[in-house]
Amino acid sequence: MLSRNGNSVSTGASVAETLAATLHSVLGGESGGLHEPLFGGKEKEYVTQCIETGYVSSVGPFVDRFEAELAAYVGAPHAIAVVNGTSGLHLALVAVGVQPGDEVIVPALSFVATASAVRLSGGIPHFVDVSPDTWGIDANYLRDYLRAALIPSGNSWINKITGRPVTAIVAMHTLGHPCDSAGIAVVAGEFSLKFVEDAAESLGSFSRDLHTGLAGDVGVFSFNGNKTITTGGGGAIVTRDASLAARMKHLSTTAKVPHRFEFDHDLVGYNYRMPNINAALGVAQLEQLPDFILRQRALYSKYEGAFEDLGLGDVRSESPGTASNYWLQALLLTPEVANNRDQMLSVCLDEGVPVRPLWKPLNTLSPYRDCPSDDTPVVNDLYARVICLPSSASLA
Amino acid sequence: MLSRNGNSVSTGASVAETLAATLHSVLGGESGGLHEPLFGGKEKEYVTQCIETGYVSSVGPFVDRFEAELAAYVGAPHAIAVVNGTSGLHLALVAVGVQPGDEVIVPALSFVATASAVRLSGGIPHFVDVSPDTWGIDANYLRDYLRAALIPSGNSWINKITGRPVTAIVAMHTLGHPCDSAGIAVVAGEFSLKFVEDAAESLGSFSRDLHTGLAGDVGVFSFNGNKTITTGGGGAIVTRDASLAARMKHLSTTAKVPHRFEFDHDLVGYNYRMPNINAALGVAQLEQLPDFILRQRALYSKYEGAFEDLGLGDVRSESPGTASNYWLQALLLTPEVANNRDQMLSVCLDEGVPVRPLWKPLNTLSPYRDCPSDDTPVVNDLYARVICLPSSASLA
Repeated sequence: MLSRNGNSVSTGASVAETLAATLHSVLGGESGGLHEPLFGGKEKEYVTQCIETGYVSSVGPFVDRFEAELAAYVGAPHAIAVVNGTSGLHLALVAVGVQPGDEVIVPALSFVATASAVRLSGGIPHFVDVSPDTWGIDANYLRDYLRAALIPSGNSWINKITGRPVTAIVAMHTLGHPCDSAGIAVVAGEFSLKFVEDAAESLGSFSRDLHTGLAGDVGVFSFNGNKTITTGGGGAIVTRDASLAARMKHLSTTAKVPHRFEFDHDLVGYNYRMPNINAALGVAQLEQLPDFILRQRALYSKYEGAFEDLGLGDVRSESPGTASNYWLQALLLTPEVANNRDQMLSVCLDEGVPVRPLWKPLNTLSPYRDCPSDDTPVVNDLYARVICLPSSASLA
Repeated sequence: MLSRNGNSVSTGASVAETLAATLHSVLGGESGGLHEPLFGGKEKEYVTQCIETGYVSSVGPFVDRFEAELAAYVGAPHAIAVVNGTSGLHLALVAVGVQPGDEVIVPALSFVATASAVRLSGGIPHFVDVSPDTWGIDANYLRDYLRAALIPSGNSWINKITGRPVTAIVAMHTLGHPCDSAGIAVVAGEFSLKFVEDAAESLGSFSRDLHTGLAGDVGVFSFNGNKTITTGGGGAIVTRDASLAARMKHLSTTAKVPHRFEFDHDLVGYNYRMPNINAALGVAQLEQLPDFILRQRALYSKYEGAFEDLGLGDVRSESPGTASNYWLQALLLTPEVANNRDQMLSVCLDEGVPVRPLWKPLNTLSPYRDCPSDDTPVVNDLYARVICLPSSASLA
């Protein structure tokens, strides 16, 4: 392969230097963190209102407003603001009925929270591979896998090998790019699985006009500091199901039974409500979401142009039929240069360019490596070949 | 009994009116909520700094500063800021080694989070009575109870009836008033119990010069909107034990193993870190804590004077040997008027005076009523007789 200036870049060092130089050329000087928030709206105004009115905690007008405006944006009848995405996933799994000892189908490619939320609910992650196209679970692969791995037992399905019930599936929209959640919903129905969408990374991403998070029973967003919009720490749950929404809101507020003065709680509940001061940030950020997505699309185009003829690999583009928020820009290295991944990451970091790999496959982590898992060749290949690129909206 | 004006107040209605009128006389006009925050310091300045620097999430200078300043204030070598008190209790119980199926001794008098945190850890609450003096667990009662209820088994102790190991105790400092945590620590040692202090309500409260939260293995504070200081939502863990502190911090940050770019996680961890924007509020609030406590002491004196000769009951004062933060002012009704408690609460609420009872005894709530429990006559009596009074610092 040839570098920009026509020289051979076959050594690891030169490949790494090419990557760093290309990123420098796209980004100019300081690139800050990997995905830094941009506060260009009414953040200060709204947060100041919280302090002036005294409403900073789990009850307040910005919580209601954030929930209403988020619901309107994604097209969900119900949205519940929670303390972070992990808590939202935990709450969703409990609410759809995951019981201790149940297995929950999870992609081996995700941030660890997808698996730890399953453990928080008492469930056991059961890992599957992802599609090389969407980088999320593929519906047809899933059907074939479940047909081979499960057997029916009464109204539910059990893992042939462990004998444990498999009661739910979590699909994740990797780096913001929608997976085939409509197809997965069909397969979930065939195997009586509850379907939770881990949409932590995909606020603003649509698949055939349906916002991510709405194809299954529950969808969960994250507003951590590195997400498309941030509330400092926070998350939200969306659902079409009114009774599920009521149950999740009840569980998120310590399962307190409404009463004028008594403290009665009818279930083991959680303290998972988003504080008003965090929701204030969220309302201001949501107002800028369309702009943030335009910026990410522009940043994608910059990267796409810069890497086009370099031979290092392809910048991840949205899949057919989807509109992605391009949360985290990513370069899929060619197999030829992928064995230089670590050196490329190190050189970029040495030169002040914030990059990172994908997450280690969850089925290789010590707390999860004994969990049930399919072979995951696509996950392993993506992990070995992807480098995530600086993706702050300010870079566009 | 006689009302202020010398008339008999033997009917429920007149007792209730006397209470409402007395509270009106102490509080003047608007009394707002039961315990509203007071933002009289640098809250806006610090929160604005977060927005201007972009540090709003789980890493940031205010998180470090809040931890350091909180540790200095309470005299703890280690403090870890977390997302709320419930999460802090959960993390503490996991970190001290509570295993699924273990029983954890818990007072039947507490906010439900004390019990739900035990369930989150997989443990089973085992309820005990409290002292009529401190309203928290009494060390001598505890020793007698555990001697009767447990038998030794190897290095640990098991519940004679259920056969389950009893591995930890949580003591709570009710309404901010310290219980005898030093004495409880001795008893915990005798029965090989780990000791977690639920100090959610007691920031600023000391027992013989030791701040609450430091007598056991771990102490947990809450900074919910109704607490002495608030971070919107938030909590903190303090400990003297460096290895326990390191373990809790690791668990609170998804158990991520430090690495320049890899995402490796060596335990099932949690997403429990306090965001920087919430910590910014906390730093500003902590600067005002001594003033807030003086205000609460002044408010206590006002109430004490107002209720002195009314015959309704006594305003809760700090126990001998303790300095209380007087988080929530409380009136202990005389047995003669206590059967009018509900009417008194209702009339006050009707007249816009925010009051509430104590929490329903935890061993009577449906999710916990089948858990092991001693008889709890003191808890039942306090629940029947206590009315919590408006306690915002602004009222002093």
